[in-house]
Amino acid sequence: MSTDLDRPLAGLRVVECATFVAGPSGGMALAQLGADVIRVDAIGGGPDHRRWPLAPAGGSLYWNGLNKGKRSVTVDLSAPEGRELVTALVTAPGPQAGILLENTGRAWLSYDTLAKRRPDLIHLRIQGHADGRPAVDYTVNAATGVPDVTGPETTTTPVNHVLPAWDLLTGMTATTGLLAALHRRQRTGRGGLIELALADVALASVANLGWLAEAQLSGRDRAKQGNHLYGAFGVDFATRDGRRVMVVALTASQWRALCRATGTEKVFAAMEEALRADFSQDDDRYRWRKVIEPILRPWFEDRTAEEAGRALDAARVLWGPYRTFTEAAAAGDPLIAQVEQPGTGAVASAGSPLRWSGGGSAPPAAAPRLGAHTHEVLSDVLGLTRADLSRLSEAGVIGGVSP
Amino acid sequence: MSTDLDRPLAGLRVVECATFVAGPSGGMALAQLGADVIRVDAIGGGPDHRRWPLAPAGGSLYWNGLNKGKRSVTVDLSAPEGRELVTALVTAPGPQAGILLENTGRAWLSYDTLAKRRPDLIHLRIQGHADGRPAVDYTVNAATGVPDVTGPETTTTPVNHVLPAWDLLTGMTATTGLLAALHRRQRTGRGGLIELALADVALASVANLGWLAEAQLSGRDRAKQGNHLYGAFGVDFATRDGRRVMVVALTASQWRALCRATGTEKVFAAMEEALRADFSQDDDRYRWRKVIEPILRPWFEDRTAEEAGRALDAARVLWGPYRTFTEAAAAGDPLIAQVEQPGTGAVASAGSPLRWSGGGSAPPAAAPRLGAHTHEVLSDVLGLTRADLSRLSEAGVIGGVSP
Repeated sequence: MSTDLDRPLAGLRVVECATFVAGPSGGMALAQLGADVIRVDAIGGGPDHRRWPLAPAGGSLYWNGLNKGKRSVTVDLSAPEGRELVTALVTAPGPQAGILLENTGRAWLSYDTLAKRRPDLIHLRIQGHADGRPAVDYTVNAATGVPDVTGPETTTTPVNHVLPAWDLLTGMTATTGLLAALHRRQRTGRGGLIELALADVALASVANLGWLAEAQLSGRDRAKQGNHLYGAFGVDFATRDGRRVMVVALTASQWRALCRATGTEKVFAAMEEALRADFSQDDDRYRWRKVIEPILRPWFEDRTAEEAGRALDAARVLWGPYRTFTEAAAAGDPLIAQVEQPGTGAVASAGSPLRWSGGGSAPPAAAPRLGAHTHEVLSDVLGLTRADLSRLSEAGVIGGVSP
Repeated sequence: MSTDLDRPLAGLRVVECATFVAGPSGGMALAQLGADVIRVDAIGGGPDHRRWPLAPAGGSLYWNGLNKGKRSVTVDLSAPEGRELVTALVTAPGPQAGILLENTGRAWLSYDTLAKRRPDLIHLRIQGHADGRPAVDYTVNAATGVPDVTGPETTTTPVNHVLPAWDLLTGMTATTGLLAALHRRQRTGRGGLIELALADVALASVANLGWLAEAQLSGRDRAKQGNHLYGAFGVDFATRDGRRVMVVALTASQWRALCRATGTEKVFAAMEEALRADFSQDDDRYRWRKVIEPILRPWFEDRTAEEAGRALDAARVLWGPYRTFTEAAAAGDPLIAQVEQPGTGAVASAGSPLRWSGGGSAPPAAAPRLGAHTHEVLSDVLGLTRADLSRLSEAGVIGGVSP
């Protein structure tokens, strides 16, 4: 928990009852902005507590990565007394409290039940499908149409993404919704239920990019384009030393820079004349991409990645190197710090990508040990005494630090 | 522009000077929550105004999809008088105004320049790299390490994603940052500059998922896993009618459901004994995925997708069908409406995925014609007279509706 009053969400309290990526990543973003985010789990942890990747020592690097800077409370969620404690945490008074982020779908955590206790509650519920059917990133992704157009042109089956893009996007859509609801509550005094389905985030995104409308109006689906960009020029090239770079020309000036860097202005001018094409236009760069690519390729094959990079930078070409996770972790990016994670050791951890002038940013924090703040939070927020906590602990209603 | 006072951001005014996906998608999310979002472009449009996909009639389905519900203003951005108009729009008074979302990197739109005119300005600048070097989704993605682990196991080169996931995630990180900054300004009166680099959003995400820490601690990079989930069980299966479904067992109960649906309980129990494995554990489901997959496969090959889906639903298996964009557009999802887009006709358009109890949601709006609100906004916000507007229009300083 941050006590830095300069941080944008200092003083705000959010209770998070969520597992896996979407909810926890949203809660973490709020914690990184200074909110006091209290993650509530069953004693022993939720179904994501041992999710891969794991550290050699055993802890979940995934759980640690998505719960940095939160306070962790564990409670017997099947016991009435445990549920009452969670309800009390969620509905505790105060203009900066009464905010719940959850994906449990549980009836005792329903808005109607909770709003009886705090009518101005802001409750954001993350769902799989809007009608309540379960879904996860990978099932939702299949239905968007994206795997159908992803991967090498020679592949005839869908290619799944590895990045849980929909989970991450849902997490930040949730935080946007929660902060918009808070803005409204401050103006009008009204809270409310906000529902957000993973499947809707995914479908809205492919629609917003124009991809559904294109299929609808053209009457046909796009084919896979391998690593080529759709509708402009961009593709990867191998360099002499066995590295690869991604090169993009989305605009006419980026295209001119690429021609200048690779000394291909004259060749392409002649080709434009021969083909009656105009490579300053997106359409023609895309249409002739299979002609453009092999003309550029030898320039890259003749250079090491470092030589190519230097020349591309000098000409202001838009490009980037491919890296592995190991290389990305070792690159010394200022966003990444080595954070001492209890039970695991020092691990590469990211701060918030939002950089605030004059304070508001903070270096990455460690994740809590599961249950570490149970007594502290129940005492702080609900005013439980040491005797209360002992009794609840002995009765197995609340947890504490996991061993 | 919405005039519905029930909507969460009703009354808020945001000026957007941004192109392509990240900034515009964030601005659109704010417009869908009820904010008055004024997108400012050069006369004739920004570099994204003709971005693919295009409608058969010529308009950009991409631009339309990402700018729904905004007001569009066009100004000569190279003319001092044009720049002054934009500056005046950004710094106009009012507690619900003074919010800028931009990705231009232009000096005349720098925070230091603008804050002289409105010291409590909230200015969110989206960048490529944090040090100012340009980058786009596709160059940033290469450097995350994700393409290295994406795609068929037999592919030896990186596989790019097609979805501009980092752009979309940056857009919603930007809206989260803007609303957090607004919360702080309402409490403290202070605005500020918030910078957000696409490359940082991407790197933070792969770090948060534990992927960089895993590479660092294990000393090696993951291999490509094809369509298999990492660290649990999930893969796609072909059905008798040539369709495909994605099936996932992230938890022990999802695994039991899958065994029940496919009648494989006894086979897997015998295999667990023979292999000394426990498929209720993530680790063992992942380790033995290449044994598990072919045992399940015939069940899918013997059924049509519809038959398989019915049986999987009945057993509460977590699964989803693969679809193409055409199929996704035609599925009749309530999130998608046919919106009449001027110059294009009716197109499949998505509303906000955030669903608000008791009002706050709105059906998808059309995108503005480029420049359509130039006169209206300059008159509304800056109080320009009809005579002023005529003079500026004749001098070529401001645009109007494009033909």
